[in-house]
Amino acid sequence: MQKPKKVVLAYSGGLDTSIILKWLQTEYGCEVITFTADLGQGEELEPARQKALLMGIKEENIHIVDVREEFVRDFVFPMFRANALYEGLYLLGTSIARPLISQHLVKIAQDHGADAVAHGATGKGNDQVRFELSAAALDPSIKVIAPWRLWDLTSRTRLLEFAEANQIPIAKDKRGEAPFSVDANLLHTSSEGRVLENPAEEFPNYVLQRVVPAEEAPDTPEMVEITFERGDAVAINGERLSPATILARLNDLGGKHGVGVLDLVENRFVGMKSRGIYETPGGTILLEAHRGIEQITLDAGAGHLKDSIMPRYAELIYNGFWFSPEREALQALIDKTQEHVTGTVRVKLYKGRAVTVARWSDHSLYSEKHVTFEEDAGAYDQKDAEGFIRLNALRLKLIATRNARVAKK
Amino acid sequence: MQKPKKVVLAYSGGLDTSIILKWLQTEYGCEVITFTADLGQGEELEPARQKALLMGIKEENIHIVDVREEFVRDFVFPMFRANALYEGLYLLGTSIARPLISQHLVKIAQDHGADAVAHGATGKGNDQVRFELSAAALDPSIKVIAPWRLWDLTSRTRLLEFAEANQIPIAKDKRGEAPFSVDANLLHTSSEGRVLENPAEEFPNYVLQRVVPAEEAPDTPEMVEITFERGDAVAINGERLSPATILARLNDLGGKHGVGVLDLVENRFVGMKSRGIYETPGGTILLEAHRGIEQITLDAGAGHLKDSIMPRYAELIYNGFWFSPEREALQALIDKTQEHVTGTVRVKLYKGRAVTVARWSDHSLYSEKHVTFEEDAGAYDQKDAEGFIRLNALRLKLIATRNARVAKK
Amino acid sequence: MQKPKKVVLAYSGGLDTSIILKWLQTEYGCEVITFTADLGQGEELEPARQKALLMGIKEENIHIVDVREEFVRDFVFPMFRANALYEGLYLLGTSIARPLISQHLVKIAQDHGADAVAHGATGKGNDQVRFELSAAALDPSIKVIAPWRLWDLTSRTRLLEFAEANQIPIAKDKRGEAPFSVDANLLHTSSEGRVLENPAEEFPNYVLQRVVPAEEAPDTPEMVEITFERGDAVAINGERLSPATILARLNDLGGKHGVGVLDLVENRFVGMKSRGIYETPGGTILLEAHRGIEQITLDAGAGHLKDSIMPRYAELIYNGFWFSPEREALQALIDKTQEHVTGTVRVKLYKGRAVTVARWSDHSLYSEKHVTFEEDAGAYDQKDAEGFIRLNALRLKLIATRNARVAKK
Amino acid sequence: MQKPKKVVLAYSGGLDTSIILKWLQTEYGCEVITFTADLGQGEELEPARQKALLMGIKEENIHIVDVREEFVRDFVFPMFRANALYEGLYLLGTSIARPLISQHLVKIAQDHGADAVAHGATGKGNDQVRFELSAAALDPSIKVIAPWRLWDLTSRTRLLEFAEANQIPIAKDKRGEAPFSVDANLLHTSSEGRVLENPAEEFPNYVLQRVVPAEEAPDTPEMVEITFERGDAVAINGERLSPATILARLNDLGGKHGVGVLDLVENRFVGMKSRGIYETPGGTILLEAHRGIEQITLDAGAGHLKDSIMPRYAELIYNGFWFSPEREALQALIDKTQEHVTGTVRVKLYKGRAVTVARWSDHSLYSEKHVTFEEDAGAYDQKDAEGFIRLNALRLKLIATRNARVAKK
Repeated sequence: MQKPKKVVLAYSGGLDTSIILKWLQTEYGCEVITFTADLGQGEELEPARQKALLMGIKEENIHIVDVREEFVRDFVFPMFRANALYEGLYLLGTSIARPLISQHLVKIAQDHGADAVAHGATGKGNDQVRFELSAAALDPSIKVIAPWRLWDLTSRTRLLEFAEANQIPIAKDKRGEAPFSVDANLLHTSSEGRVLENPAEEFPNYVLQRVVPAEEAPDTPEMVEITFERGDAVAINGERLSPATILARLNDLGGKHGVGVLDLVENRFVGMKSRGIYETPGGTILLEAHRGIEQITLDAGAGHLKDSIMPRYAELIYNGFWFSPEREALQALIDKTQEHVTGTVRVKLYKGRAVTVARWSDHSLYSEKHVTFEEDAGAYDQKDAEGFIRLNALRLKLIATRNARVAKK
Repeated sequence: MQKPKKVVLAYSGGLDTSIILKWLQTEYGCEVITFTADLGQGEELEPARQKALLMGIKEENIHIVDVREEFVRDFVFPMFRANALYEGLYLLGTSIARPLISQHLVKIAQDHGADAVAHGATGKGNDQVRFELSAAALDPSIKVIAPWRLWDLTSRTRLLEFAEANQIPIAKDKRGEAPFSVDANLLHTSSEGRVLENPAEEFPNYVLQRVVPAEEAPDTPEMVEITFERGDAVAINGERLSPATILARLNDLGGKHGVGVLDLVENRFVGMKSRGIYETPGGTILLEAHRGIEQITLDAGAGHLKDSIMPRYAELIYNGFWFSPEREALQALIDKTQEHVTGTVRVKLYKGRAVTVARWSDHSLYSEKHVTFEEDAGAYDQKDAEGFIRLNALRLKLIATRNARVAKK
Repeated sequence: MQKPKKVVLAYSGGLDTSIILKWLQTEYGCEVITFTADLGQGEELEPARQKALLMGIKEENIHIVDVREEFVRDFVFPMFRANALYEGLYLLGTSIARPLISQHLVKIAQDHGADAVAHGATGKGNDQVRFELSAAALDPSIKVIAPWRLWDLTSRTRLLEFAEANQIPIAKDKRGEAPFSVDANLLHTSSEGRVLENPAEEFPNYVLQRVVPAEEAPDTPEMVEITFERGDAVAINGERLSPATILARLNDLGGKHGVGVLDLVENRFVGMKSRGIYETPGGTILLEAHRGIEQITLDAGAGHLKDSIMPRYAELIYNGFWFSPEREALQALIDKTQEHVTGTVRVKLYKGRAVTVARWSDHSLYSEKHVTFEEDAGAYDQKDAEGFIRLNALRLKLIATRNARVAKK
Repeated sequence: MQKPKKVVLAYSGGLDTSIILKWLQTEYGCEVITFTADLGQGEELEPARQKALLMGIKEENIHIVDVREEFVRDFVFPMFRANALYEGLYLLGTSIARPLISQHLVKIAQDHGADAVAHGATGKGNDQVRFELSAAALDPSIKVIAPWRLWDLTSRTRLLEFAEANQIPIAKDKRGEAPFSVDANLLHTSSEGRVLENPAEEFPNYVLQRVVPAEEAPDTPEMVEITFERGDAVAINGERLSPATILARLNDLGGKHGVGVLDLVENRFVGMKSRGIYETPGGTILLEAHRGIEQITLDAGAGHLKDSIMPRYAELIYNGFWFSPEREALQALIDKTQEHVTGTVRVKLYKGRAVTVARWSDHSLYSEKHVTFEEDAGAYDQKDAEGFIRLNALRLKLIATRNARVAKK
């Protein structure tokens, strides 16, 4: 690979990406542009600016952007329309943030005439794939630099030596190895690695970053009402709010009640299994409520179709194919089904659970008139069921007749 | 339809099926054979014998059979291998019992030379479909009589009048209309109708039959370890038990801890939406544990395939197609994936939740050596990821190049 | 059912629908409105007007409409975007015309304030389902009358007697029973029944209505070039034409060269198998060409996704669910994939076959630079394949290792 | 990578694999074991033995094996049970042979204690993936050497220089570059590259290796009857034959009549599109006949299920995942559906087409009694259709009612 001249780095301000920043400068002698996103990870971002300046990044090359609304509106909400769960359980909290970051990296690179983008993901994980597939889809000419796959700083000791040799400040608590690795954004916090690597051992409660253990949650349930329009949440307890504000409020509620903790062993795209502890308090409530409102507003035909393609949709997002024709085609299908997914759901939060207890909607397909045990005034003719069953049974009878005939021979 | 001469009736001993019994006798002048199954519904069955005798059924025409082991071994467990959930949430507790009942009805009919079977399901629900499709698949010549679709006893008053006119004893609490309708077996209890018909109203706690409300569950979590072999549970806390015993134990545990309550609006096969309250305490634990063991023993390829066909499989069972070539073909697929689904899962029960907290297996595919954040001694070469990503990205780059080219024109 | 007062009848002008017309008048004493569509079936429609007038239909109640462009543009072309084949082979020529007819019937009924529509399909086939599901979806209050399921004219003799008794003219060639039943529109002609009922017997060539037997087709191949834009054919041999004109031209070409004859035993929605001889000359060419242009303009991700949902899409159309949320959602997916399906295909016609022999497009994704056996100037680095394969192989190695480990015990 | 000591090479005896043989010897100084398979490619294999001996391979290290029966029985036939077509058209003739070759390479390596296998596939194609994924799945410890990705013999000139420098005989017609590249086995011949690289240009007839151009095929059609048992062909024209013999006979017939030529642009697993000319004469007849027999013996439920998973199954084989849990699970599903796929089909061969014209079977599900246009003696009650349609329509009516209600507001 030719040495890049200008590189846009996904920069958190932390030790690892600071080392990468310096390594890019020394390895390639290139100009570095930093991109630091406020995804709702709950950290101050201004220190990232100071550190970048300290390492010689020009003021105009420092980009710190609040992308929370964009994140929830354009990525999280479309995904939740699908009730997406990877491997039956995982709400894709990390996966869904990566394409957004790549999109900004590529855009900044194009604006600055940079020839490469760089990220701090390792060569074992899914995030490298997500960053790089997104970049490839958005700008096929852009190079992606993944220092963890390139350099020889392969141990903690060597990383720290490099940092010291290059005057990169090391916070005291970063001297030692962290007991596990954490990633966070407005949708979730994931923890994995080291003390969590044995899936036969329960994770210790101190792993939890934003959700209280269920046992410590309040003894009194709390209700929350979420209103949807065309598949997206638009209000909480009757108050109309922006997408990011909705998710933040639900995070607070879920976190308080111990909702949304998942201990999962999953299959990475790169071929190995890994174990993660995921906290998705608001997302867990949102999924439950979305299902609740779909129950009364979505028809069986559309609903079963959605269910049947959901695993593939979730897999695409997990594997990093957000910006792909097949994800976009599936999104078109999903969005089409959401036209009437409008109404309100009441969810009960208690000791780790979020449970739909009531739902109502002007768009409801539920017909008490039809389903009632009471007199239905002719809404439904029970005799129709006979023909319905007989024709559904016809092929089964033909099979049974054939099988008996053949068996006799 | 020609009048049947001998009819095998699915007989519970309750008021409704007693009325049906008498109606069959009077309407057709036919001989009635009763089949009463112990599916684990938790009711005494001997009274059914007494009632049948009272109504003139011959001793040799009364069949009371304990089918609990058969039910769990041949129906529940195969279904759980698929992690089957109808519409994302429902564990199919009623659906899975119907084909078993039909199978016995048909067998008894063949043994007695009867020309019809009869059931007490109404013309609005799914159960009639399940009973009748199963019967058609098992014996294409058998007739099925569904009195609720035929008679004119269309109100509570008329039913009671018929009962009184025919000396059918009416228990005091059956005089008035029940506030909702209940079905139960070893896997679940369902409640629906009447006071539950408005999905915008929370169900009252008195609806619950076998699970305590989460708020009343113990304040201390309880752990349970479930061992699987080839996808089926075989032991609890190290004790090897029969299928029905395992499910019964898990029911006790789940019921005590408030686990497995679902308030659902679902789509019936006959075209309307209905609302049900389902209690599946043991099944909910079993599903969680099965997923837990699959996490470490099932490969991504087989796992994602299973996930993708699961909605169809669940729909088939819900719709009554247990005895169909397509359910059997899907079962062959699912069973093939379970060959190594062997190992043990620890599940934590607390205040309505059952959560996997640990899993281990000799058949595990989890490789700490590969996934570790530490030195992996060459188990995995991070540089491989580059080629992997580049070839996965190739088509995305070709698309982006094409799109840019076309856009320019 | 209450007697209808005004009925809109799908009226062909033929003997059968004339009998239905009269039967509606006599049975219900209702006003009849006729709808006769020019779907390209190749029959004069003005005689239908005369016959209707003769039977007392008011001038303003007679609707004869040329729907050919609408049929191809809004029904045939959207379906062909999906490469839809029912049971792997059938181009759905009858199925796709039914929802259009229902749409017109319902619209006319609403305009006239009619309370019912009527059709001439029998109770054994798929068409009744297609007509009636479409009507239900478009106007839930409309009644549908299907005389073949209602009346007692169950033999040819009784039908003719009824016709004679009611002064309905009977063409000489309609006296005897036709040797098979025919349905036609611009997309296809189907023949079934009677002499065709035994699938072990070859159909005689005289069955063919619009395609010459391959043996009688010209000895010289003919080329045709079809240009597509966003998935739809827009030009033939460089000449821009309307949708119906394109299909008509392709029908002429295909018919001349023996293209598009299918002898199929298929599964009807109502549960039985039936055998049909289908002639779809233009449609067969169109499908081949559409596949040809997709080969170079559609990405693998979108293409494989389309392929995987196609059987379901085709089944929905076959079963009569054109106007359903799930068909519409699938259509949204399919249409999304067609944005770049633009370009030209050359198809060779010869002795029953239509075969793509060349295709080109400004939107092509085919990259000779990448695929070439010659020096590719760095477009593709063969070493990338190693990492690609190694990570794809990783899970297979972990499985093999596990299996060997378990087998040893 | 450590230098291998013993390598099993997939050796054809041709120039390219001879160069690889020598390169392995010189590059690694390793012992080479050759495996030459008779897959029905129609070449003499004994010359391969002589050439191997000449290059110093020990007699006991030369393996020449006739795998034709194994190929058809264990690979081709199972695949044809699925009616597998990649991207709608391709019969997977190359793809299905690779896992068999890998299986033998790995077995021989284990027998000889070799530490690596080697193949002659390039770094751009699918075959490398198929060879290597198969090897990984069968023996996770085996190394795979792909010289085309490793060496510097990157031009024809350098290859020939290497051959000359190493006394490898070069046939006269191998001096110049072949105009295209050919692969063949009993199922098919593929041609690609060079003169075929432009998909806008028709391929010249001299490309065809085993099928006559349709225009040159006999002017008289020929019939062939193929008998199936449980989904596999077992007899031709009443003569019971082995699997490989059946395929060979069908190849002769198809080749003579111009059947089975495909000009396709397809999506390679490695991300690029390529164009190939495929000749699959016998396979094309077999697919047609298999579909023909399924039409009367396979139920709609099983048939539609098969259709819906077929694209995924075909993709797995194309991508090299024959030995994967997901392919095996899908195979279990497919095989389950074939239990009654038994009977005989008559196929007409004429000028490039193979068309089913008749089929019959003791296992037939076709019921003339039900489908007949004549009196059916009560086999089918047309009135049943009404209830069937009404309940299928119910949800559509509820949707339409809801939509109208909402639209009014």
